[in-house]
Amino acid sequence: MSVPAGVAWINGEFVSTAEARVSIFDSGFMGGVSVFDTLACWKGGIFKLRQHLERFERSAHAAAIPLPLRGAALADVVVETTRRAGHRDAYVQVIVTRGLRYTTPPGPQPSTLIVFSIPYIWIGGEAKVDSGLSAIVPSIRNTPVSTLDPKIKNFNRFHQHLAGLEATSAGVDDVVLLDQHGYLTESRGANVFLIQAGSLYTPALGVLQGITRQTVFEIAEEFGLPLHERDLTPYDLYTADEAFLSSTAGGILPLVLVDGRRIGDGVPGPLTRRIHDRYWERHLSGPDVTPVFA
Amino acid sequence: MSVPAGVAWINGEFVSTAEARVSIFDSGFMGGVSVFDTLACWKGGIFKLRQHLERFERSAHAAAIPLPLRGAALADVVVETTRRAGHRDAYVQVIVTRGLRYTTPPGPQPSTLIVFSIPYIWIGGEAKVDSGLSAIVPSIRNTPVSTLDPKIKNFNRFHQHLAGLEATSAGVDDVVLLDQHGYLTESRGANVFLIQAGSLYTPALGVLQGITRQTVFEIAEEFGLPLHERDLTPYDLYTADEAFLSSTAGGILPLVLVDGRRIGDGVPGPLTRRIHDRYWERHLSGPDVTPVFA
Repeated sequence: MSVPAGVAWINGEFVSTAEARVSIFDSGFMGGVSVFDTLACWKGGIFKLRQHLERFERSAHAAAIPLPLRGAALADVVVETTRRAGHRDAYVQVIVTRGLRYTTPPGPQPSTLIVFSIPYIWIGGEAKVDSGLSAIVPSIRNTPVSTLDPKIKNFNRFHQHLAGLEATSAGVDDVVLLDQHGYLTESRGANVFLIQAGSLYTPALGVLQGITRQTVFEIAEEFGLPLHERDLTPYDLYTADEAFLSSTAGGILPLVLVDGRRIGDGVPGPLTRRIHDRYWERHLSGPDVTPVFA
Repeated sequence: MSVPAGVAWINGEFVSTAEARVSIFDSGFMGGVSVFDTLACWKGGIFKLRQHLERFERSAHAAAIPLPLRGAALADVVVETTRRAGHRDAYVQVIVTRGLRYTTPPGPQPSTLIVFSIPYIWIGGEAKVDSGLSAIVPSIRNTPVSTLDPKIKNFNRFHQHLAGLEATSAGVDDVVLLDQHGYLTESRGANVFLIQAGSLYTPALGVLQGITRQTVFEIAEEFGLPLHERDLTPYDLYTADEAFLSSTAGGILPLVLVDGRRIGDGVPGPLTRRIHDRYWERHLSGPDVTPVFA
Protein backbone atom coordinates (compact mmCIF):
# COMPACT_ATOMS: atom_id res chain seq x y z
CA MET A 1 0.00 0.00 0.00
CA SER A 2 1.46 3.35 -0.97
CA VAL A 3 0.49 6.94 -1.71
CA PRO A 4 -0.93 7.57 -5.19
CA ALA A 5 1.69 7.90 -7.95
CA GLY A 6 2.37 11.47 -8.96
CA VAL A 7 4.37 14.62 -8.49
CA ALA A 8 4.24 17.29 -5.79
CA TRP A 9 5.74 20.77 -5.64
CA ILE A 10 6.51 21.94 -2.11
CA ASN A 11 7.82 25.47 -1.55
CA GLY A 12 9.62 25.47 -4.87
CA GLU A 13 10.86 21.87 -5.09
CA PHE A 14 9.42 19.11 -7.26
CA VAL A 15 9.34 15.67 -5.59
CA SER A 16 7.53 12.40 -6.13
CA THR A 17 4.33 12.01 -4.10
CA ALA A 18 6.09 9.24 -2.14
CA GLU A 19 8.63 11.83 -0.94
CA ALA A 20 6.08 14.62 -0.37
CA ARG A 21 6.23 15.27 3.37
CA VAL A 22 5.75 18.12 5.82
CA SER A 23 7.02 18.70 9.35
CA ILE A 24 4.79 17.39 12.12
CA PHE A 25 5.11 20.97 13.46
CA ASP A 26 3.45 22.41 10.36
CA SER A 27 0.29 24.30 11.38
CA GLY A 28 -1.62 22.35 8.72
CA PHE A 29 -0.88 19.10 10.59
CA MET A 30 -0.77 20.52 14.10
CA GLY A 31 -3.74 22.89 14.09
CA GLY A 32 -5.62 22.50 10.81
CA VAL A 33 -4.58 25.98 9.68
CA SER A 34 -4.58 25.44 5.93
CA VAL A 35 -6.77 26.14 2.91
CA PHE A 36 -6.84 24.23 -0.33
CA ASP A 37 -8.47 23.81 -3.69
CA THR A 38 -8.95 20.76 -5.88
CA LEU A 39 -8.82 20.90 -9.68
CA ALA A 40 -9.53 18.30 -12.31
CA CYS A 41 -7.35 17.63 -15.31
CA TRP A 42 -9.55 15.78 -17.82
CA LYS A 43 -8.35 14.29 -21.11
CA GLY A 44 -5.28 16.45 -20.80
CA GLY A 45 -6.85 19.82 -19.91
CA ILE A 46 -7.43 21.53 -16.54
CA PHE A 47 -11.02 22.73 -16.07
CA LYS A 48 -11.65 26.28 -14.84
CA LEU A 49 -8.06 26.79 -13.69
CA ARG A 50 -8.54 30.54 -13.17
CA GLN A 51 -11.77 30.13 -11.17
CA HIS A 52 -10.19 27.52 -8.87
CA LEU A 53 -7.13 29.66 -8.20
CA GLU A 54 -9.27 32.75 -7.59
CA ARG A 55 -11.30 30.80 -5.03
CA PHE A 56 -8.06 29.53 -3.48
CA GLU A 57 -6.80 33.11 -3.18
CA ARG A 58 -10.09 34.17 -1.56
CA SER A 59 -9.81 31.29 0.96
CA ALA A 60 -6.24 32.28 1.84
CA HIS A 61 -7.19 35.97 2.10
CA ALA A 62 -10.15 35.28 4.40
CA ALA A 63 -7.85 33.12 6.57
CA ALA A 64 -5.05 35.73 6.52
CA ILE A 65 -2.61 33.08 5.25
CA PRO A 66 0.04 34.80 3.08
CA LEU A 67 0.36 33.22 -0.38
CA PRO A 68 3.96 32.93 -1.61
CA LEU A 69 2.67 32.67 -5.21
CA ARG A 70 -0.55 33.79 -6.85
CA GLY A 71 -2.17 34.45 -10.22
CA ALA A 72 -0.19 33.46 -13.32
CA ALA A 73 2.86 32.34 -11.32
CA LEU A 74 0.76 29.90 -9.30
CA ALA A 75 -1.10 28.76 -12.43
CA ASP A 76 2.28 27.98 -14.05
CA VAL A 77 3.24 25.75 -11.11
CA VAL A 78 -0.11 23.95 -11.23
CA VAL A 79 0.24 23.29 -14.96
CA GLU A 80 3.89 22.21 -14.69
CA THR A 81 3.18 19.87 -11.73
CA THR A 82 0.29 18.30 -13.65
CA ARG A 83 2.46 17.91 -16.75
CA ARG A 84 5.32 16.30 -14.81
CA ALA A 85 2.95 13.87 -13.06
CA GLY A 86 1.82 12.70 -16.49
CA HIS A 87 -1.78 11.75 -15.62
CA ARG A 88 -4.12 13.06 -18.36
CA ASP A 89 -7.06 12.44 -15.98
CA ALA A 90 -5.77 13.92 -12.75
CA TYR A 91 -6.80 15.08 -9.29
CA VAL A 92 -4.78 18.23 -8.76
CA GLN A 93 -4.62 20.05 -5.46
CA VAL A 94 -3.15 23.30 -4.14
CA ILE A 95 -2.69 23.67 -0.37
CA VAL A 96 -1.30 26.52 1.69
CA THR A 97 -0.70 26.34 5.45
CA ARG A 98 0.34 29.02 7.93
CA GLY A 99 3.77 27.37 8.14
CA LEU A 100 5.44 25.98 11.25
CA ARG A 101 3.34 26.30 14.40
CA TYR A 102 6.27 26.12 16.79
CA THR A 103 9.78 27.31 16.02
CA THR A 104 12.97 28.28 17.75
CA PRO A 105 12.94 31.25 18.10
CA PRO A 106 9.15 31.84 18.05
CA GLY A 107 7.87 34.23 15.39
CA PRO A 108 5.88 34.60 12.17
CA GLN A 109 6.57 31.75 9.79
CA PRO A 110 6.60 31.59 6.00
CA SER A 111 3.57 29.74 4.66
CA THR A 112 3.89 26.20 3.29
CA LEU A 113 2.64 26.03 -0.32
CA ILE A 114 1.99 22.65 -1.93
CA VAL A 115 0.73 21.57 -5.36
CA PHE A 116 0.30 17.93 -6.37
CA SER A 117 -1.16 15.84 -9.15
CA ILE A 118 -2.32 12.21 -8.76
CA PRO A 119 -4.71 10.00 -10.77
CA TYR A 120 -8.29 11.32 -10.83
CA ILE A 121 -10.43 10.41 -7.79
CA TRP A 122 -14.18 9.66 -7.99
CA ILE A 123 -16.19 10.17 -4.77
CA GLY A 124 -17.57 6.72 -4.01
CA GLY A 125 -15.90 5.19 -7.06
CA GLU A 126 -16.56 5.69 -10.80
CA ALA A 127 -19.31 3.02 -10.95
CA LYS A 128 -21.54 5.21 -8.74
CA VAL A 129 -21.98 7.68 -11.59
CA ASP A 130 -24.17 5.05 -13.24
CA SER A 131 -25.65 3.27 -10.22
CA GLY A 132 -26.11 6.34 -8.01
CA LEU A 133 -25.11 6.90 -4.40
CA SER A 134 -26.97 5.99 -1.22
CA ALA A 135 -26.74 8.36 1.73
CA ILE A 136 -27.98 9.18 5.19
CA VAL A 137 -28.64 12.43 6.98
CA PRO A 138 -26.26 11.80 9.91
CA SER A 139 -26.66 13.03 13.48
CA ILE A 140 -23.43 15.04 13.17
CA ARG A 141 -24.14 18.61 12.02
CA ASN A 142 -22.10 20.74 9.63
CA THR A 143 -19.78 23.41 11.05
CA PRO A 144 -21.74 26.67 11.44
CA VAL A 145 -20.65 29.81 9.60
CA SER A 146 -20.18 31.53 12.98
CA THR A 147 -17.35 29.04 13.68
CA LEU A 148 -15.84 28.54 10.23
CA ASP A 149 -17.58 29.54 7.01
CA PRO A 150 -17.32 26.64 4.52
CA LYS A 151 -16.66 29.29 1.85
CA ILE A 152 -13.10 29.07 3.22
CA LYS A 153 -12.20 25.72 1.65
CA ASN A 154 -10.39 24.00 4.51
CA PHE A 155 -9.30 20.66 5.95
CA ASN A 156 -11.06 20.90 9.35
CA ARG A 157 -13.03 17.82 8.37
CA PHE A 158 -13.19 15.81 11.57
CA HIS A 159 -16.98 16.15 11.55
CA GLN A 160 -17.02 14.66 8.05
CA HIS A 161 -15.02 11.72 9.39
CA LEU A 162 -17.55 11.26 12.24
CA ALA A 163 -20.46 11.54 9.79
CA GLY A 164 -18.72 9.01 7.56
CA LEU A 165 -18.61 6.54 10.46
CA GLU A 166 -22.41 6.83 10.63
CA ALA A 167 -22.66 6.19 6.89
CA THR A 168 -20.47 3.11 7.20
CA SER A 169 -22.59 1.78 10.08
CA ALA A 170 -25.71 2.36 7.99
CA GLY A 171 -24.18 0.58 5.00
CA VAL A 172 -24.50 3.59 2.69
CA ASP A 173 -22.05 5.53 0.54
CA ASP A 174 -22.29 9.07 1.75
CA VAL A 175 -23.96 11.75 3.88
CA VAL A 176 -25.95 14.97 3.53
CA LEU A 177 -25.13 17.16 6.52
CA LEU A 178 -27.68 19.40 8.24
CA ASP A 179 -26.86 22.79 9.70
CA GLN A 180 -27.54 23.57 13.37
CA HIS A 181 -31.17 24.46 12.53
CA GLY A 182 -31.97 21.28 10.62
CA TYR A 183 -31.60 22.55 7.06
CA LEU A 184 -29.62 20.70 4.39
CA THR A 185 -26.10 21.98 3.75
CA GLU A 186 -23.68 19.79 1.80
CA SER A 187 -21.98 16.42 1.66
CA ARG A 188 -18.29 15.72 2.28
CA GLY A 189 -16.54 18.05 -0.14
CA ALA A 190 -19.60 18.12 -2.43
CA ASN A 191 -22.66 20.35 -2.83
CA VAL A 192 -26.17 18.91 -3.04
CA PHE A 193 -28.91 19.62 -5.61
CA LEU A 194 -32.56 18.56 -5.79
CA ILE A 195 -34.78 18.56 -8.87
CA GLN A 196 -38.51 19.02 -8.42
CA ALA A 197 -40.93 19.55 -11.34
CA GLY A 198 -38.09 20.55 -13.65
CA SER A 199 -36.57 23.14 -11.31
CA LEU A 200 -33.22 22.87 -9.51
CA TYR A 201 -32.86 23.65 -5.80
CA THR A 202 -29.70 23.94 -3.69
CA PRO A 203 -28.90 25.42 -0.25
CA ALA A 204 -27.77 29.06 -0.36
CA LEU A 205 -25.56 29.45 2.71
CA GLY A 206 -23.33 27.46 5.04
CA VAL A 207 -21.97 25.55 2.08
CA LEU A 208 -18.85 25.46 -0.07
CA GLN A 209 -18.84 27.90 -3.00
CA GLY A 210 -18.43 24.96 -5.34
CA ILE A 211 -16.89 25.48 -8.76
CA THR A 212 -18.88 22.44 -9.93
CA ARG A 213 -21.95 23.99 -8.23
CA GLN A 214 -21.33 27.18 -10.24
CA THR A 215 -20.95 25.09 -13.41
CA VAL A 216 -24.33 23.46 -12.69
CA PHE A 217 -25.79 26.98 -12.43
CA GLU A 218 -24.37 27.75 -15.89
CA ILE A 219 -25.69 24.49 -17.37
CA ALA A 220 -29.14 25.12 -15.84
CA GLU A 221 -29.19 28.48 -17.57
CA GLU A 222 -28.13 26.89 -20.88
CA PHE A 223 -30.92 24.32 -20.51
CA GLY A 224 -33.49 26.91 -19.40
CA LEU A 225 -34.01 25.16 -16.04
CA PRO A 226 -35.10 27.45 -13.18
CA LEU A 227 -32.65 27.36 -10.27
CA HIS A 228 -33.37 28.41 -6.68
CA GLU A 229 -30.94 28.82 -3.75
CA ARG A 230 -33.01 28.34 -0.61
CA ASP A 231 -33.42 26.54 2.72
CA LEU A 232 -34.23 22.87 2.20
CA THR A 233 -35.12 20.07 4.62
CA PRO A 234 -34.66 16.29 4.51
CA TYR A 235 -38.37 16.11 3.48
CA ASP A 236 -37.54 18.07 0.32
CA LEU A 237 -34.74 15.62 -0.44
CA TYR A 238 -36.84 12.49 0.19
CA THR A 239 -39.66 13.78 -2.06
CA ALA A 240 -37.51 15.20 -4.88
CA ASP A 241 -37.85 13.82 -8.40
CA GLU A 242 -34.06 13.61 -8.66
CA ALA A 243 -31.06 14.58 -6.57
CA PHE A 244 -27.31 14.71 -7.07
CA LEU A 245 -24.04 15.76 -5.49
CA SER A 246 -21.65 18.05 -7.34
CA SER A 247 -17.90 17.97 -6.82
CA THR A 248 -14.67 18.30 -8.75
CA ALA A 249 -13.97 14.74 -7.49
CA GLY A 250 -16.63 12.97 -9.53
CA GLY A 251 -18.60 15.73 -11.21
CA ILE A 252 -22.35 15.04 -11.10
CA LEU A 253 -23.10 12.11 -8.77
CA PRO A 254 -26.74 10.92 -8.60
CA LEU A 255 -28.28 10.37 -5.15
CA VAL A 256 -30.80 7.54 -5.39
CA LEU A 257 -31.50 6.51 -1.79
CA VAL A 258 -31.50 8.72 1.34
CA ASP A 259 -32.37 7.44 4.82
CA GLY A 260 -34.01 4.41 3.20
CA ARG A 261 -36.24 6.55 0.94
CA ARG A 262 -35.89 6.14 -2.81
CA ILE A 263 -35.31 9.44 -4.61
CA GLY A 264 -37.72 9.47 -7.58
CA ASP A 265 -37.55 6.01 -9.14
CA GLY A 266 -34.47 5.07 -7.13
CA VAL A 267 -32.22 5.30 -10.18
CA PRO A 268 -30.30 8.26 -11.65
CA GLY A 269 -32.83 10.62 -13.22
CA PRO A 270 -32.94 11.95 -16.81
CA LEU A 271 -32.17 15.60 -15.98
CA THR A 272 -29.28 14.54 -13.75
CA ARG A 273 -27.92 12.53 -16.68
CA ARG A 274 -28.26 15.47 -19.10
CA ILE A 275 -26.44 17.78 -16.67
CA HIS A 276 -23.76 15.11 -16.14
CA ASP A 277 -23.20 14.71 -19.87
CA ARG A 278 -22.98 18.46 -20.46
CA TYR A 279 -20.68 18.88 -17.45
CA TRP A 280 -18.10 16.48 -18.86
CA GLU A 281 -18.52 17.78 -22.42
CA ARG A 282 -17.49 21.20 -21.14
CA HIS A 283 -14.21 19.65 -19.89
CA LEU A 284 -13.14 18.74 -23.44
CA SER A 285 -12.84 22.15 -25.10
CA GLY A 286 -13.81 25.78 -24.82
CA PRO A 287 -12.76 28.77 -22.74
CA ASP A 288 -12.79 26.83 -19.44
CA VAL A 289 -10.11 24.35 -20.53
CA THR A 290 -6.37 24.97 -20.09
CA PRO A 291 -4.46 22.38 -22.17
CA VAL A 292 -1.62 20.76 -20.20
CA PHE A 293 -0.49 18.01 -22.51
CA ALA A 294 0.41 18.61 -26.16
CA MET B 1 14.39 29.60 12.22
CA SER B 2 13.88 25.92 12.89
CA VAL B 3 11.57 23.49 14.66
CA PRO B 4 12.11 23.17 18.43
CA ALA B 5 15.00 20.88 19.43
CA GLY B 6 13.87 17.48 20.58
CA VAL B 7 13.06 13.90 19.73
CA ALA B 8 10.05 12.35 18.04
CA TRP B 9 8.89 8.75 17.79
CA ILE B 10 6.88 8.04 14.63
CA ASN B 11 5.37 4.58 14.14
CA GLY B 12 8.23 2.91 16.00
CA GLU B 13 11.20 5.01 14.87
CA PHE B 14 13.00 7.64 16.93
CA VAL B 15 14.09 10.71 14.94
CA SER B 16 15.11 14.27 15.72
CA THR B 17 12.28 16.80 15.60
CA ALA B 18 13.97 18.34 12.53
CA GLU B 19 13.46 15.02 10.72
CA ALA B 20 9.94 14.40 12.07
CA ARG B 21 7.73 14.47 8.98
CA VAL B 22 4.51 12.95 7.69
CA SER B 23 3.15 12.40 4.20
CA ILE B 24 1.07 15.24 2.80
CA PHE B 25 -1.50 12.46 2.16
CA ASP B 26 -1.78 11.71 5.88
CA SER B 27 -5.38 12.24 7.01
CA GLY B 28 -4.07 14.39 9.86
CA PHE B 29 -2.70 16.89 7.33
CA MET B 30 -5.28 16.34 4.57
CA GLY B 31 -8.51 16.18 6.57
CA GLY B 32 -7.77 16.98 10.20
CA VAL B 33 -8.55 13.41 11.25
CA SER B 34 -6.30 13.15 14.30
CA VAL B 35 -6.53 13.30 18.08
CA PHE B 36 -3.79 14.26 20.48
CA ASP B 37 -2.84 14.93 24.05
CA THR B 38 -0.23 17.23 25.57
CA LEU B 39 1.72 16.34 28.71
CA ALA B 40 4.15 18.34 30.80
CA CYS B 41 7.46 17.05 32.06
CA TRP B 42 8.44 19.34 34.96
CA LYS B 43 11.75 19.23 36.81
CA GLY B 44 12.27 15.78 35.35
CA GLY B 45 8.87 14.19 36.05
CA ILE B 46 5.78 13.76 33.85
CA PHE B 47 2.58 14.99 35.51
CA LYS B 48 -0.51 12.76 35.47
CA LEU B 49 0.85 10.47 32.75
CA ARG B 50 -1.88 7.87 33.26
CA GLN B 51 -4.71 10.45 33.17
CA HIS B 52 -3.38 12.02 29.95
CA LEU B 53 -3.05 8.67 28.20
CA GLU B 54 -6.51 7.58 29.36
CA ARG B 55 -7.98 10.77 27.92
CA PHE B 56 -6.00 10.19 24.71
CA GLU B 57 -7.45 6.67 24.46
CA ARG B 58 -10.97 8.03 25.00
CA SER B 59 -10.42 10.62 22.24
CA ALA B 60 -9.20 7.93 19.83
CA HIS B 61 -12.06 5.60 20.77
CA ALA B 62 -14.72 8.30 20.25
CA ALA B 63 -13.16 9.07 16.86
CA ALA B 64 -12.87 5.37 15.93
CA ILE B 65 -9.15 5.82 15.25
CA PRO B 66 -7.34 2.53 16.01
CA LEU B 67 -4.44 2.95 18.45
CA PRO B 68 -1.36 0.87 17.57
CA LEU B 69 -0.17 1.15 21.20
CA ARG B 70 -2.01 1.84 24.44
CA GLY B 71 -1.64 1.62 28.21
CA ALA B 72 1.76 0.70 29.60
CA ALA B 73 3.30 0.18 26.14
CA LEU B 74 2.36 3.71 25.08
CA ALA B 75 3.47 5.11 28.44
CA ASP B 76 6.87 3.49 27.93
CA VAL B 77 7.26 5.24 24.56
CA VAL B 78 6.25 8.59 26.06
CA VAL B 79 8.79 8.21 28.87
CA GLU B 80 11.57 7.02 26.56
CA THR B 81 10.94 9.83 24.03
CA THR B 82 11.04 12.39 26.84
CA ARG B 83 14.23 10.88 28.22
CA ARG B 84 15.97 10.87 24.83
CA ALA B 85 14.96 14.49 24.15
CA GLY B 86 16.71 15.45 27.38
CA HIS B 87 14.54 18.44 28.35
CA ARG B 88 13.71 18.25 32.09
CA ASP B 89 10.99 20.88 31.52
CA ALA B 90 9.29 19.55 28.41
CA TYR B 91 6.18 19.86 26.26
CA VAL B 92 5.35 16.28 25.35
CA GLN B 93 2.68 15.36 22.85
CA VAL B 94 1.05 12.17 21.57
CA ILE B 95 -0.82 12.30 18.26
CA VAL B 96 -2.67 9.61 16.34
CA THR B 97 -4.12 10.10 12.86
CA ARG B 98 -6.30 7.82 10.74
CA GLY B 99 -3.29 7.18 8.48
CA LEU B 100 -3.05 7.90 4.77
CA ARG B 101 -6.19 9.43 3.28
CA TYR B 102 -5.49 8.31 -0.28
CA THR B 103 -3.56 5.20 -1.22
CA THR B 104 -3.02 2.87 -4.13
CA PRO B 105 -4.95 0.61 -3.85
CA PRO B 106 -7.64 2.33 -1.75
CA GLY B 107 -8.47 0.68 1.57
CA PRO B 108 -8.25 0.97 5.35
CA GLN B 109 -4.93 2.37 6.47
CA PRO B 110 -2.86 1.79 9.57
CA SER B 111 -2.99 4.77 11.92
CA THR B 112 -0.04 7.15 12.26
CA LEU B 113 1.14 7.34 15.89
CA ILE B 114 3.53 10.11 16.94
CA VAL B 115 5.13 11.07 20.26
CA PHE B 116 7.49 14.01 20.66
CA SER B 117 9.21 16.01 23.37
CA ILE B 118 10.38 19.63 22.98
CA PRO B 119 11.20 22.41 25.48
CA TYR B 120 8.21 23.43 27.64
CA ILE B 121 5.80 25.95 26.02
CA TRP B 122 3.98 28.68 27.97
CA ILE B 123 0.78 30.03 26.43
CA GLY B 124 1.50 33.73 25.87
CA GLY B 125 5.02 33.40 27.29
CA GLU B 126 6.26 32.70 30.82
CA ALA B 127 6.12 36.38 31.88
CA LYS B 128 2.30 36.34 31.59
CA VAL B 129 2.08 34.10 34.65
CA ASP B 130 3.08 37.16 36.69
CA SER B 131 1.62 39.99 34.59
CA GLY B 132 -1.59 38.23 33.56
CA LEU B 133 -3.15 37.86 30.11
CA SER B 134 -5.44 40.24 28.26
CA ALA B 135 -8.21 38.76 26.09
CA ILE B 136 -11.25 39.49 23.99
CA VAL B 137 -14.47 37.61 23.44
CA PRO B 138 -14.13 37.28 19.65
CA SER B 139 -16.95 37.19 17.09
CA ILE B 140 -15.89 33.65 16.06
CA ARG B 141 -17.82 31.02 18.05
CA ASN B 142 -16.52 27.71 19.37
CA THR B 143 -17.35 24.49 17.49
CA PRO B 144 -20.68 23.12 18.77
CA VAL B 145 -20.85 19.65 20.32
CA SER B 146 -23.29 18.65 17.57
CA THR B 147 -20.43 19.10 15.07
CA LEU B 148 -17.40 18.00 17.08
CA ASP B 149 -17.41 17.62 20.84
CA PRO B 150 -14.27 19.32 22.27
CA LYS B 151 -14.02 16.34 24.64
CA ILE B 152 -12.37 14.70 21.61
CA LYS B 153 -9.06 16.56 21.85
CA ASN B 154 -8.39 17.40 18.21
CA PHE B 155 -6.52 19.69 15.84
CA ASN B 156 -9.52 21.14 13.95
CA ARG B 157 -8.48 24.55 15.21
CA PHE B 158 -9.07 26.82 12.24
CA HIS B 159 -11.64 28.74 14.28
CA GLN B 160 -8.99 29.30 16.97
CA HIS B 161 -6.72 30.73 14.26
CA LEU B 162 -9.53 33.08 13.11
CA ALA B 163 -10.26 34.10 16.71
CA GLY B 164 -6.52 34.68 17.20
CA LEU B 165 -6.52 37.12 14.27
CA GLU B 166 -9.18 39.11 16.14
CA ALA B 167 -7.03 39.08 19.29
CA THR B 168 -4.02 40.33 17.32
CA SER B 169 -6.08 43.13 15.76
CA ALA B 170 -7.30 44.11 19.22
CA GLY B 171 -3.76 44.08 20.61
CA VAL B 172 -4.53 41.45 23.27
CA ASP B 173 -2.99 38.10 24.15
CA ASP B 174 -5.84 35.65 23.91
CA VAL B 175 -9.54 34.88 23.50
CA VAL B 176 -12.47 33.41 25.42
CA LEU B 177 -14.76 31.74 22.88
CA LEU B 178 -18.55 31.76 23.18
CA ASP B 179 -20.76 28.85 22.15
CA GLN B 180 -23.53 29.30 19.59
CA HIS B 181 -25.89 30.53 22.33
CA GLY B 182 -23.56 33.18 23.75
CA TYR B 183 -22.23 31.30 26.78
CA LEU B 184 -18.54 31.14 27.64
CA THR B 185 -16.73 27.96 26.60
CA GLU B 186 -12.92 27.96 26.57
CA SER B 187 -9.82 29.61 25.18
CA ARG B 188 -7.42 28.15 22.63
CA GLY B 189 -6.43 24.83 24.19
CA ALA B 190 -7.21 26.12 27.69
CA ASN B 191 -10.21 26.06 30.02
CA VAL B 192 -11.50 29.20 31.74
CA PHE B 193 -12.32 29.75 35.43
CA LEU B 194 -13.90 32.68 37.29
CA ILE B 195 -13.70 33.40 41.00
CA GLN B 196 -16.55 35.29 42.64
CA ALA B 197 -16.88 35.72 46.42
CA GLY B 198 -14.48 32.87 47.09
CA SER B 199 -16.22 30.35 44.81
CA LEU B 200 -14.89 28.95 41.53
CA TYR B 201 -17.04 28.80 38.38
CA THR B 202 -16.31 27.14 35.03
CA PRO B 203 -18.43 26.13 32.03
CA ALA B 204 -19.76 22.57 32.19
CA LEU B 205 -20.18 21.54 28.56
CA GLY B 206 -18.84 22.24 25.09
CA VAL B 207 -15.33 22.43 26.52
CA LEU B 208 -12.21 20.31 26.70
CA GLN B 209 -12.09 17.82 29.58
CA GLY B 210 -8.91 19.48 30.78
CA ILE B 211 -6.49 17.56 32.96
CA THR B 212 -5.38 20.91 34.38
CA ARG B 213 -9.09 21.78 34.84
CA GLN B 214 -9.50 18.51 36.79
CA THR B 215 -6.44 19.37 38.86
CA VAL B 216 -7.98 22.76 39.70
CA PHE B 217 -11.08 20.85 40.89
CA GLU B 218 -8.84 18.78 43.18
CA ILE B 219 -7.04 21.86 44.49
CA ALA B 220 -10.37 23.64 45.12
CA GLU B 221 -11.44 20.67 47.22
CA GLU B 222 -8.14 20.71 49.14
CA PHE B 223 -8.60 24.45 49.80
CA GLY B 224 -12.30 24.08 50.67
CA LEU B 225 -13.34 26.39 47.81
CA PRO B 226 -16.84 25.73 46.42
CA LEU B 227 -16.74 24.92 42.69
CA HIS B 228 -19.66 25.15 40.26
CA GLU B 229 -19.88 23.96 36.65
CA ARG B 230 -22.52 26.12 34.98
CA ASP B 231 -23.46 28.39 32.08
CA LEU B 232 -21.57 31.69 32.26
CA THR B 233 -21.76 34.86 30.17
CA PRO B 234 -19.23 37.61 29.33
CA TYR B 235 -20.91 39.68 32.08
CA ASP B 236 -19.90 37.07 34.65
CA LEU B 237 -16.33 37.26 33.38
CA TYR B 238 -16.17 41.09 33.37
CA THR B 239 -17.53 41.27 36.94
CA ALA B 240 -15.53 38.38 38.45
CA ASP B 241 -13.14 39.03 41.32
CA GLU B 242 -10.49 36.94 39.56
CA ALA B 243 -10.25 34.82 36.42
CA PHE B 244 -7.70 32.44 34.93
CA LEU B 245 -7.05 30.02 32.11
CA SER B 246 -5.92 26.47 32.84
CA SER B 247 -3.78 24.46 30.46
CA THR B 248 -0.94 21.97 30.46
CA ALA B 249 0.91 24.62 28.42
CA GLY B 250 1.35 27.18 31.16
CA GLY B 251 -0.65 25.84 34.09
CA ILE B 252 -2.67 28.59 35.79
CA LEU B 253 -2.66 31.77 33.69
CA PRO B 254 -4.35 34.85 35.20
CA LEU B 255 -6.78 36.81 33.02
CA VAL B 256 -6.60 40.47 34.01
CA LEU B 257 -8.32 42.37 31.16
CA VAL B 258 -11.21 41.17 28.96
CA ASP B 259 -12.82 43.35 26.27
CA GLY B 260 -11.26 46.39 27.91
CA ARG B 261 -12.73 45.59 31.35
CA ARG B 262 -10.33 45.01 34.24
CA ILE B 263 -10.95 41.72 36.04
CA GLY B 264 -10.95 42.56 39.76
CA ASP B 265 -8.04 44.92 40.35
CA GLY B 266 -6.58 44.24 36.91
CA VAL B 267 -3.73 42.19 38.34
CA PRO B 268 -3.46 38.45 39.12
CA GLY B 269 -5.64 37.76 42.18
CA PRO B 270 -4.62 36.11 45.47
CA LEU B 271 -6.68 32.92 45.05
CA THR B 272 -5.39 32.50 41.49
CA ARG B 273 -1.85 32.78 42.87
CA ARG B 274 -2.53 30.20 45.62
CA ILE B 275 -3.98 27.75 43.07
CA HIS B 276 -1.01 28.41 40.75
CA ASP B 277 1.50 27.72 43.51
CA ARG B 278 -0.22 24.51 44.57
CA TYR B 279 -0.58 23.39 40.97
CA TRP B 280 3.18 23.54 40.36
CA GLU B 281 3.98 22.10 43.80
CA ARG B 282 2.01 19.01 42.81
CA HIS B 283 4.32 18.58 39.81
CA LEU B 284 7.35 18.02 42.05
CA SER B 285 6.42 14.84 43.91
CA GLY B 286 3.56 12.59 44.84
CA PRO B 287 1.42 9.99 43.11
CA ASP B 288 0.82 12.14 40.00
CA VAL B 289 4.50 12.35 39.07
CA THR B 290 6.29 9.79 36.90
CA PRO B 291 10.06 10.36 37.16
CA VAL B 292 11.78 10.36 33.76
CA PHE B 293 15.28 11.48 34.60
CA ALA B 294 17.37 9.81 37.29
